Amino acid sequence: MPMKNRLRDKIDNDEAALGAWLALPDTHSAELMSRLGFDWATIDMQHGLVDYQRATAMLQAMTASDTTPIVRVPWNEPGIIGKMLDAGAHGIIIPMVNSRAEAEAAASACRYPPRGKRSFGPFRAGLLYGGNYLEEANEQAYCIPMIETRQALDNLDDILSVPGLDGVYVGPSDLSVSLGLRPAADQEDESFTDAIDRILDGCRRHGLFAGVAGTVKEAPKRIRQGFRFVEVARDSGSMAKAALKDLRTVRASMDDS
Amino acid sequence: MPMKNRLRDKIDNDEAALGAWLALPDTHSAELMSRLGFDWATIDMQHGLVDYQRATAMLQAMTASDTTPIVRVPWNEPGIIGKMLDAGAHGIIIPMVNSRAEAEAAASACRYPPRGKRSFGPFRAGLLYGGNYLEEANEQAYCIPMIETRQALDNLDDILSVPGLDGVYVGPSDLSVSLGLRPAADQEDESFTDAIDRILDGCRRHGLFAGVAGTVKEAPKRIRQGFRFVEVARDSGSMAKAALKDLRTVRASMDDS
Amino acid sequence: MPMKNRLRDKIDNDEAALGAWLALPDTHSAELMSRLGFDWATIDMQHGLVDYQRATAMLQAMTASDTTPIVRVPWNEPGIIGKMLDAGAHGIIIPMVNSRAEAEAAASACRYPPRGKRSFGPFRAGLLYGGNYLEEANEQAYCIPMIETRQALDNLDDILSVPGLDGVYVGPSDLSVSLGLRPAADQEDESFTDAIDRILDGCRRHGLFAGVAGTVKEAPKRIRQGFRFVEVARDSGSMAKAALKDLRTVRASMDDS
Amino acid sequence: MPMKNRLRDKIDNDEAALGAWLALPDTHSAELMSRLGFDWATIDMQHGLVDYQRATAMLQAMTASDTTPIVRVPWNEPGIIGKMLDAGAHGIIIPMVNSRAEAEAAASACRYPPRGKRSFGPFRAGLLYGGNYLEEANEQAYCIPMIETRQALDNLDDILSVPGLDGVYVGPSDLSVSLGLRPAADQEDESFTDAIDRILDGCRRHGLFAGVAGTVKEAPKRIRQGFRFVEVARDSGSMAKAALKDLRTVRASMDDS
Amino acid sequence: MPMKNRLRDKIDNDEAALGAWLALPDTHSAELMSRLGFDWATIDMQHGLVDYQRATAMLQAMTASDTTPIVRVPWNEPGIIGKMLDAGAHGIIIPMVNSRAEAEAAASACRYPPRGKRSFGPFRAGLLYGGNYLEEANEQAYCIPMIETRQALDNLDDILSVPGLDGVYVGPSDLSVSLGLRPAADQEDESFTDAIDRILDGCRRHGLFAGVAGTVKEAPKRIRQGFRFVEVARDSGSMAKAALKDLRTVRASMDDS
Amino acid sequence: MPMKNRLRDKIDNDEAALGAWLALPDTHSAELMSRLGFDWATIDMQHGLVDYQRATAMLQAMTASDTTPIVRVPWNEPGIIGKMLDAGAHGIIIPMVNSRAEAEAAASACRYPPRGKRSFGPFRAGLLYGGNYLEEANEQAYCIPMIETRQALDNLDDILSVPGLDGVYVGPSDLSVSLGLRPAADQEDESFTDAIDRILDGCRRHGLFAGVAGTVKEAPKRIRQGFRFVEVARDSGSMAKAALKDLRTVRASMDDS
Repeated sequence: MPMKNRLRDKIDNDEAALGAWLALPDTHSAELMSRLGFDWATIDMQHGLVDYQRATAMLQAMTASDTTPIVRVPWNEPGIIGKMLDAGAHGIIIPMVNSRAEAEAAASACRYPPRGKRSFGPFRAGLLYGGNYLEEANEQAYCIPMIETRQALDNLDDILSVPGLDGVYVGPSDLSVSLGLRPAADQEDESFTDAIDRILDGCRRHGLFAGVAGTVKEAPKRIRQGFRFVEVARDSGSMAKAALKDLRTVRASMDDS
Repeated sequence: MPMKNRLRDKIDNDEAALGAWLALPDTHSAELMSRLGFDWATIDMQHGLVDYQRATAMLQAMTASDTTPIVRVPWNEPGIIGKMLDAGAHGIIIPMVNSRAEAEAAASACRYPPRGKRSFGPFRAGLLYGGNYLEEANEQAYCIPMIETRQALDNLDDILSVPGLDGVYVGPSDLSVSLGLRPAADQEDESFTDAIDRILDGCRRHGLFAGVAGTVKEAPKRIRQGFRFVEVARDSGSMAKAALKDLRTVRASMDDS
Repeated sequence: MPMKNRLRDKIDNDEAALGAWLALPDTHSAELMSRLGFDWATIDMQHGLVDYQRATAMLQAMTASDTTPIVRVPWNEPGIIGKMLDAGAHGIIIPMVNSRAEAEAAASACRYPPRGKRSFGPFRAGLLYGGNYLEEANEQAYCIPMIETRQALDNLDDILSVPGLDGVYVGPSDLSVSLGLRPAADQEDESFTDAIDRILDGCRRHGLFAGVAGTVKEAPKRIRQGFRFVEVARDSGSMAKAALKDLRTVRASMDDS
Repeated sequence: MPMKNRLRDKIDNDEAALGAWLALPDTHSAELMSRLGFDWATIDMQHGLVDYQRATAMLQAMTASDTTPIVRVPWNEPGIIGKMLDAGAHGIIIPMVNSRAEAEAAASACRYPPRGKRSFGPFRAGLLYGGNYLEEANEQAYCIPMIETRQALDNLDDILSVPGLDGVYVGPSDLSVSLGLRPAADQEDESFTDAIDRILDGCRRHGLFAGVAGTVKEAPKRIRQGFRFVEVARDSGSMAKAALKDLRTVRASMDDS
Repeated sequence: MPMKNRLRDKIDNDEAALGAWLALPDTHSAELMSRLGFDWATIDMQHGLVDYQRATAMLQAMTASDTTPIVRVPWNEPGIIGKMLDAGAHGIIIPMVNSRAEAEAAASACRYPPRGKRSFGPFRAGLLYGGNYLEEANEQAYCIPMIETRQALDNLDDILSVPGLDGVYVGPSDLSVSLGLRPAADQEDESFTDAIDRILDGCRRHGLFAGVAGTVKEAPKRIRQGFRFVEVARDSGSMAKAALKDLRTVRASMDDS
Repeated sequence: MPMKNRLRDKIDNDEAALGAWLALPDTHSAELMSRLGFDWATIDMQHGLVDYQRATAMLQAMTASDTTPIVRVPWNEPGIIGKMLDAGAHGIIIPMVNSRAEAEAAASACRYPPRGKRSFGPFRAGLLYGGNYLEEANEQAYCIPMIETRQALDNLDDILSVPGLDGVYVGPSDLSVSLGLRPAADQEDESFTDAIDRILDGCRRHGLFAGVAGTVKEAPKRIRQGFRFVEVARDSGSMAKAALKDLRTVRASMDDS
């Protein structure tokens, strides 16, 4: 099967692709989340509780769905980037890319020569995507650095102009902390809103899609702002939110009676 | 620490104890669910996706919370009942107890001699609950057979009068299917509502608490009916419900704009 | 998606369905084996090295393929039969079914009321196969007892006439041992060949398909004999066979030079 | 390699074989314990925290040592007995064998026909012990029921005379509880000491070896009494004992200064 | 619950905090060791046999105890440092910190901006320690580089003066090897004893606590020297020590008789 | 037991050592492959599907065989190199060593001071190889960088002259891609054949053994060329090859009839 996917269709059509975040290291929650209609789902190996063996099994559990699997690696390190692409991820989100050199390292780890330095040996990806995986992966696999610090803002054009990037992912919490604000999915402070504007503008100028972390609360606004890769929900957060709400509803019904 | 717990406090005070159902084989979802305020949480080894090794790790992850951990075993089999009590469960729910003999087997597996035939060797339970575990477990560990078939209804008093039972747990889906209805958490059919009434009445007469599976929708009614061990939410269901709702909310916001 | 599958298509068309046996507890070997073109693959929880948690992950890894997943449970025990059907198996092979009572227990564990006593709560199967799973599973899920002892031969018609069976699976090794022969995939001894004939004849008379364990050596003959569910290869055996052959080839090339 | 082993050498020479008990589900503690010089080590799947997948990996980790691996199964159930023998255990300890029928079931699960009903398919055991595994296992694999209840004492000769048993294992804690005493590795109460004498005498008359659980404290006395399969230490207990002692030593040194 | 803990109480009172070392990748040994009374226990991901998924489960298993959980990461790499703090560790020991730059990298990985570059997203730590985790972690989470080479001694003041460090941990074995001695927990060689003195002196001058690896043998002396974070026992070593001693005791009793 | 092994015997005698590649994260496939007669087997943590915890268990499962265990780490990173040597690997293959500095880093990570910077604490290796492990490991553990890029060819003598290397391993696929060819185990293109010649020549001049990835097809030629560490088969590839061949054989037999 080709690496074409629902996420790419949306991005190529300039439509917003809505996504789920997977922090739990469980194949069953991943499979369930991949069957709810999200355009993409990202296995989070950085702040999520997931290591390589679980992430790979989660990728397997998501394969029969048409939600596109993305992986956030723990750090900008070529070994794990290669391993997750080999395991079948359609794209890699790389945290804390703060300089041109770091962006080049990220891009290089995602691409085979001559575009990069990824090592060839795609066990699972080869099984899934077939004999032209080398060319296909170099075309199709997304490389998505995170823009989430003041330093990255300072180096924004240097970063965004690196060949081989497809989009960026904004981490509002880290960006907030880096700007001296409290961690949050959104901020009214001008330093934050300016940063968002600059990132969106930079992406437009460099032909990259803009992605952003957040919840149902910020997503509509983010889409209107121009983000195209937008987090809407996460496994653990959705679970806690609904369970807590239901618990309170029943508790309240008991107080009434 | 003694085996006294929040669930027992509620039951002993004739208050409804509200609970969560854990179907995902993950220590992190278990730990998260155990910190939301539920009185009890049941690790489901029957229809949940959990085996012994995961269930035991989930029990460890829940220990620092004050939600009382219960386990539903896959079947009425003394080996696994003993293993889960040894692992620190405060109570065991046993599926498909349809006759006095089956109820006696369940009770016997939960109790040390002379009250039953449980084998002594409580590795983790001994570590947690200390040197008087034998006496304490025989007093405190709940043995909760499920009443969920027409056959069980036919043998109701035979079952409920077995010494060593603490309560029963009603499975409305299986009960429905057994009565020739479609599986559901509640039914208007008189065969079903009669069954519920008979079980509640039987529990009262035999000094047992009545528990029941369900969701936020049925829970208030169940509490009013007299159930005291009431499922309110489950990990996977809560996750899917909230994630899907949020996805639809954002999709709708896109259609509006 | 419905439970229709490649295995059923073959069986319903009276064609031989060729299968793979999975003894290794690994999602990656399972995924690989499921993409080679076999009609079915059986996860072996009896003599294979697989437990529940691994088997379930293997089922997930096979879902995107069109090889139909079957599970052989460790023993004729309703708890594990229900768990593996809940996990999405399209059929269950039950070892050592030697009497009518044992066959009835197997069939009952595979079917919901009123046809059997399976308990309702299909977490993963419900996710995969949708809202009519109860009806669909009762129609589509295969219940396949093993005929592999002299005692089973003695009770053959008693066993085969039990309602709710779909086919049988012959274990030639156990059958051999039970007949006083050495364990082997095939035998020339008349006691063995007679047994095969009787089983095939019994299946025809009772409208069941006949399946059989074996290798590439016996499979063509078995198909000609009338078996329709025929093992051709197993993960570990294939691995060892090819690796050993290649090692000897290279060793031989060194001796030549 | 043949199934001959250090444990059998000791038993055949009527020498006491000293053993370790493995309750932790960890391959590294198992490997470490297997290299300290014990004659045998038993993976405890009943009261230990070990399931099938871990037990099998522990067996692998112990293979390079010359400590003979034994497994205590969770219950007298033929599926798990067969699985653990297939995985390479040299013997099986079966808990709570209280009657002749239960002893016959245990023996039957440990032996291939015509001596029993074990099913043939020894994946790992075949790999380790070679082509004559069927004959060798029927000769060499130990079947060791536990004698640990008053009921078993009542049926002692009935149990010990069952063909296919090799020895028995006494559980002093369960035996104590069954006799109305507190659980302990030894007792002065005559009901207990009589039971020990009767078991030892029964073993002598029926040509079985006698084994017993306990610690360094009881082991010398047990050996003098005639026990030949004697527990000396367990992984978790040794760990806690030495760590606690060292902690107290250092604490005391601080108080002194 | 706040991040206040027993280890910090001791350190803040200038008392020696006695600790356990966890090399086994097992939640049950971790839970057991955390309930013996140690002030802290360190999960060793460097020389211990523990990876991320097991370390996280071990942290969960230790949460209900009042032994403070520390993690030694495999290497001075910000990805894994962040992941283990997110997982709830109260402090991180970083091996082989040999220069000011390496110490700055370690400190930066442990602190949120503006003090460092840790990325925000504390799944489990947020669940445990609540809404002020960012501030609390920056104050409370220990950053403990290891001083264990000649090069580190050469750069001692450069290292110890880096802002954001809380203490150091001395690895006597590596220090010995680096000084040309055989690996050991203690040495009489002056190069070694001088190094110890210099480290203790440096810590005093820079307001850091000094920690050190070792056993019950060295611990009293280390405490008298001024070390405040002192290893006393480790899981595997304690297990082997006591088991071997008991085995020899019983063997000796047999020789006597 | 000493670290002497079958691989070293072959290398020291200038004989070709034939090996297996382990990409599946399974202890049972590893154990099986280790008992077929290969001189060495490499656990592939780079392109294989194996993480630390599984690799360590695979090493345990291979210990009783006389196939020498080697590990390919995911990347040239000292943390994981040390961990795998600690876990008992007899040698480390390090991918993508392209410069003298990278070769020095690899060598340093494999050797204790004064030859390198490996940290001392060999839990499992110490258990297996005994009290002189430090000296023995520094002599016996193989450090094998991969030569697989044009850049490495450009720096060939710089790399090969680094003290502490034992051999090199050629990755023909990556080398091909780096040279602008399609990935393959062999190439007719002169740029490739020249590269092979230069590497073999360089190894001879620097006293290193040459190793190479490939299959049964290339192995005889590679041995004739002078390679001494030659891959012959891999777990997953052997499995798929034989299973597919057998499936086609049976399919063909059906078409014939």
